Amino acid sequence: MLLRDINNPAELRKLPMEQLQPLADQLRDNIIDTLSSHPGHLASSLGVVELTVALHYVFNTPDDKLVWDVGHQSYAHKILTGRREQFSSIRTHGGLSGFPRMSESPYDAFGTGHSSTSISAALGMATASKLQGDTSRSHIAVIGDGALTGGEAFEALNNVGCSKANVLIILNDNGISIDKAVGGLDRYLTRITSSRHYNQLKDKVWRRLDGSEGGRRHDQSINFFQRLTSTVKTAALGGSNLFESLGIRYFGPIDGHDMQQLVDTLRRLKDIDGPKLLHIFTQKGKGLRQAEKDPITYHAPGKYDIRTGNQIVQNTADQPLKYQEVFGRTILELANQNPAIVGITPAMLSGCSLTIMQHSMPDRVFDVGIAEQHAVTFAAGLAAQGMMPFCNIYSTFAQRAYDQIIHDVALQELPVVICLDRAGIVGEDGATHQGAFDLAYLRPIPNLTVCAPMDEHELRNMMYTAQLPEHGPVVIRYPRGCSVHSDWESAFKEIRVGEGRCLRKGGDVAIVSLGHPGNDALAAAEELQQQGISASVYDMRFLKPMDTRLLDEIAAAGYRRIVTVEDGVRMGGFGEAVMEYLAENHPAETSKVCILAIPDQFVPHGTVAELKADCHIDKNSIVLAAQI
Amino acid sequence: MLLRDINNPAELRKLPMEQLQPLADQLRDNIIDTLSSHPGHLASSLGVVELTVALHYVFNTPDDKLVWDVGHQSYAHKILTGRREQFSSIRTHGGLSGFPRMSESPYDAFGTGHSSTSISAALGMATASKLQGDTSRSHIAVIGDGALTGGEAFEALNNVGCSKANVLIILNDNGISIDKAVGGLDRYLTRITSSRHYNQLKDKVWRRLDGSEGGRRHDQSINFFQRLTSTVKTAALGGSNLFESLGIRYFGPIDGHDMQQLVDTLRRLKDIDGPKLLHIFTQKGKGLRQAEKDPITYHAPGKYDIRTGNQIVQNTADQPLKYQEVFGRTILELANQNPAIVGITPAMLSGCSLTIMQHSMPDRVFDVGIAEQHAVTFAAGLAAQGMMPFCNIYSTFAQRAYDQIIHDVALQELPVVICLDRAGIVGEDGATHQGAFDLAYLRPIPNLTVCAPMDEHELRNMMYTAQLPEHGPVVIRYPRGCSVHSDWESAFKEIRVGEGRCLRKGGDVAIVSLGHPGNDALAAAEELQQQGISASVYDMRFLKPMDTRLLDEIAAAGYRRIVTVEDGVRMGGFGEAVMEYLAENHPAETSKVCILAIPDQFVPHGTVAELKADCHIDKNSIVLAAQI
Repeated sequence: MLLRDINNPAELRKLPMEQLQPLADQLRDNIIDTLSSHPGHLASSLGVVELTVALHYVFNTPDDKLVWDVGHQSYAHKILTGRREQFSSIRTHGGLSGFPRMSESPYDAFGTGHSSTSISAALGMATASKLQGDTSRSHIAVIGDGALTGGEAFEALNNVGCSKANVLIILNDNGISIDKAVGGLDRYLTRITSSRHYNQLKDKVWRRLDGSEGGRRHDQSINFFQRLTSTVKTAALGGSNLFESLGIRYFGPIDGHDMQQLVDTLRRLKDIDGPKLLHIFTQKGKGLRQAEKDPITYHAPGKYDIRTGNQIVQNTADQPLKYQEVFGRTILELANQNPAIVGITPAMLSGCSLTIMQHSMPDRVFDVGIAEQHAVTFAAGLAAQGMMPFCNIYSTFAQRAYDQIIHDVALQELPVVICLDRAGIVGEDGATHQGAFDLAYLRPIPNLTVCAPMDEHELRNMMYTAQLPEHGPVVIRYPRGCSVHSDWESAFKEIRVGEGRCLRKGGDVAIVSLGHPGNDALAAAEELQQQGISASVYDMRFLKPMDTRLLDEIAAAGYRRIVTVEDGVRMGGFGEAVMEYLAENHPAETSKVCILAIPDQFVPHGTVAELKADCHIDKNSIVLAAQI
Repeated sequence: MLLRDINNPAELRKLPMEQLQPLADQLRDNIIDTLSSHPGHLASSLGVVELTVALHYVFNTPDDKLVWDVGHQSYAHKILTGRREQFSSIRTHGGLSGFPRMSESPYDAFGTGHSSTSISAALGMATASKLQGDTSRSHIAVIGDGALTGGEAFEALNNVGCSKANVLIILNDNGISIDKAVGGLDRYLTRITSSRHYNQLKDKVWRRLDGSEGGRRHDQSINFFQRLTSTVKTAALGGSNLFESLGIRYFGPIDGHDMQQLVDTLRRLKDIDGPKLLHIFTQKGKGLRQAEKDPITYHAPGKYDIRTGNQIVQNTADQPLKYQEVFGRTILELANQNPAIVGITPAMLSGCSLTIMQHSMPDRVFDVGIAEQHAVTFAAGLAAQGMMPFCNIYSTFAQRAYDQIIHDVALQELPVVICLDRAGIVGEDGATHQGAFDLAYLRPIPNLTVCAPMDEHELRNMMYTAQLPEHGPVVIRYPRGCSVHSDWESAFKEIRVGEGRCLRKGGDVAIVSLGHPGNDALAAAEELQQQGISASVYDMRFLKPMDTRLLDEIAAAGYRRIVTVEDGVRMGGFGEAVMEYLAENHPAETSKVCILAIPDQFVPHGTVAELKADCHIDKNSIVLAAQI
């Protein structure tokens, strides 16, 4: 087996051309085999197997710099760059990261995870090379058509175009971000790739080039190639090229699964200085029938049967709904009652379950693409004209819209409801994706109400409350994964803003929680009870405004110990807010406070349970803290 | 005088066409007169006087929605929409805001201040109108070529293009953001506007249209106009139109100072449904010779002589340098010693004084346009390849790069030095521009060193320290305005990371400060001394890591009172960090702590002194807090 003999790209580069496709086939099989039992991002990686082989074959990695945008398509890259043996550890605690990480390998030139950063990073590296007098090094950003809609990618294109830097952008166009790609840009890309006239002419150019120079470099034919390709484009597309408008030479589109064409093209591009973009089209999920057919489901399908390719569907009949589904069903229910409600998502339509509302009310749901900044200001615009937008963003991606939350929503007190899904520890996606910072970065923002439900009834009631008249901007943050009860449907009840609640009354210690960790608090209280320690549990519900009356009550109760618990970072978070209030108003109580929160370090990948234990925010940690 | 009779746009709309230019002239004079003694954003507003008149003349504001991107060009708009009498109060405490604010006038359809939000907001409003069944309303975003480089604008263009929403984007192209506009996009716009062939053809089209329909609406001629303009563009520019690539009908470019052409064009565009962009070119500073010649200086020139137009230059010979100048001179000095240093700014080249380094080392300074996200990831890419980037961003605009600071810099521990200029209270620019949140939103980020100099020597030493080997990412934040001493040049001295200092020893109270407010702390200690209260002053220097040894010392000293002071928000800020450490380690001390920080509300415009007093973070407030 070829793949077993390839321990690094240098060995790959010794292979004859005709062995590349067999190698790619083995790579693809390896990925399909491994992920069937070790879940990960399947479809994206399958789509770029040929590209990965061709890139490492043509370019001199790791000296040439290769940046994978988002990075969940980097599995073949990891296998080819010395990590074949560890590959089955991917996304597990202590194992390989599901994304490129500089600390993991010198072949991971730049860590990614969030979208649309690759061109900026590659331009930075190319600029460094130029300043250091190294003119031969290549700097490559591989970016999908979905990621290209992120504003940062455009900011980078605008700078690449006038930089003369040696940057090669590979536009991996599969018409899919995680859900179907959206927007004017994607329509534009479709027009290019489907232009028959253009493609016919382009093929002629390629044939002519292949005939005249047989794959070898030749300055004159490179010039010819540049000129002719440009002419063909101008003629066939009326010259309408967005990238060339910005000063970036555009090449392609070519078939991203045609190894020979990929290698030939990359070899030629390697010798063309300056910023350039190669447009390839690929099929997401390539090589697994089900994934080709349904790349959205097979983006990260979980376990599947290696023989049939079918997902191994776990029996979830008696499991509680996921929080996201409670959100999805509840917003539809509310939207049926309140015609002002609209739903907005930056490219996470199925991830946040807005698909449910979209199915019933397509005109009131907006998938704006990977564009968190726009999502929030767009919501603010809708709210300014009397609508009641629910904007659903994964907590970690809301960092992209921080300024818009402050400047467009909170400052103007517009009634936008921002629902942060995947808040807290998310698990296998690791450091780039933990929703760890939201409480800390939202708390300083004036005019904002910030709350967190500890179960699905609370989520429903918070959503119901947020859309009532006279509320300003509200953030509701809830975790990835399952909610708590099996009876998610409950009658809506208004929650008074800023009002926490006592869930359980005890005499010895108080456990004060915010949101979902309240369930660990309750479980810990049960366990403490069996140890003869009687614990109260307070679900504060609101980070902001905080229920100071309830805190006064807690302070007055004379507990031996006050344990706060949250699934966010300690610095600036919920526990510190409690501590700060007590210090100022009940200074005698502060020595009793123990804050359980994520410590001051990035949280890597692993299961949620493993990571919660590592961060000392799980049930056992609460029990231990209460025992002292 | 015409202008005096126009109290709102409805009255404007009663004027005959031929009175519009005289009105515009009076408007321009009014702005020039007023700003000569009431400083504000001059050049931008002068550039859009005709556009402002034409927009309110043609469109039915405030029913039609008008959003001014950034908003510092909205002075003529303010004067025409019922705020003529208050205009001289602009940017003063309690007076008109220098930016559009929804709370100030119904004609301010959406508040702005930060760049590149207008298209998102207008699309949100247009979508609301559509959902509400109102098909006649227009939604207009006026955006400059500089603001168009911000990623959010592109995210919005991508969505506008496929929306069918009734959005009119007016691209106000003056080739200037605040400094000269940069990037591929701007070169592209220049190519369009300077294409002689194109402009000749376009003029013919316009003449023909004027002849055939004489300004009246006519469906057939609108179609003709659309078709012909498009054909002309295709012919003359090879069809290369970036906006039409994205599905947005492109019109123009036209002269933004030709009132007749503006009114005619806007009237026609008003009746064309769907997303469209009108490209106008204007001259920033139009009407004041000096401002036309030097729009960068006259962007916000301060006071000037109304007769000559010359700036009234204050004698600053014996004033300390501005912090920004200390930064600018120091980075050049360091860059001369350390070849790895490069400077990066998102469009604030002169605002942050990187001009000084650019003048000497143009290849090592990068103005990336209004693109904070790209600026930070670009810096991270440079750092990944061995460079030592200093990325200078105004504190308030760094909110735009929050995710990149976390995800690209801190997580990867890359040695990027982020210098936040305009941190703390900035004064007249008001709520959108206060650098109030940076301490609170940076503190939760792992791996980050965050410090603040209290004078220019400290700034120099922090910059020197940050570029020494073995330092990870460092943030240095300093205020707008003047530093402290007249002898800014000092020999570089390494500061141990995380080490604060005692500036003055006293027995009664401790004043604990971070950065520039330390000067108020010293002054307060002097005043307290005269009242018989002996105060220590501690300059903590570092928000993170915090000097806990020094805090232990303070706790052990047995002060009667511990006053913390900072020029940032209280929630999650410096004072809370101090309080939190004391509460956990010296609980008996917490009752002595008084935190002086910006309260939980947005800080409006006014002088820095007024606003510091309002926020109770000035010298007097320190004195009062220490007296209790």
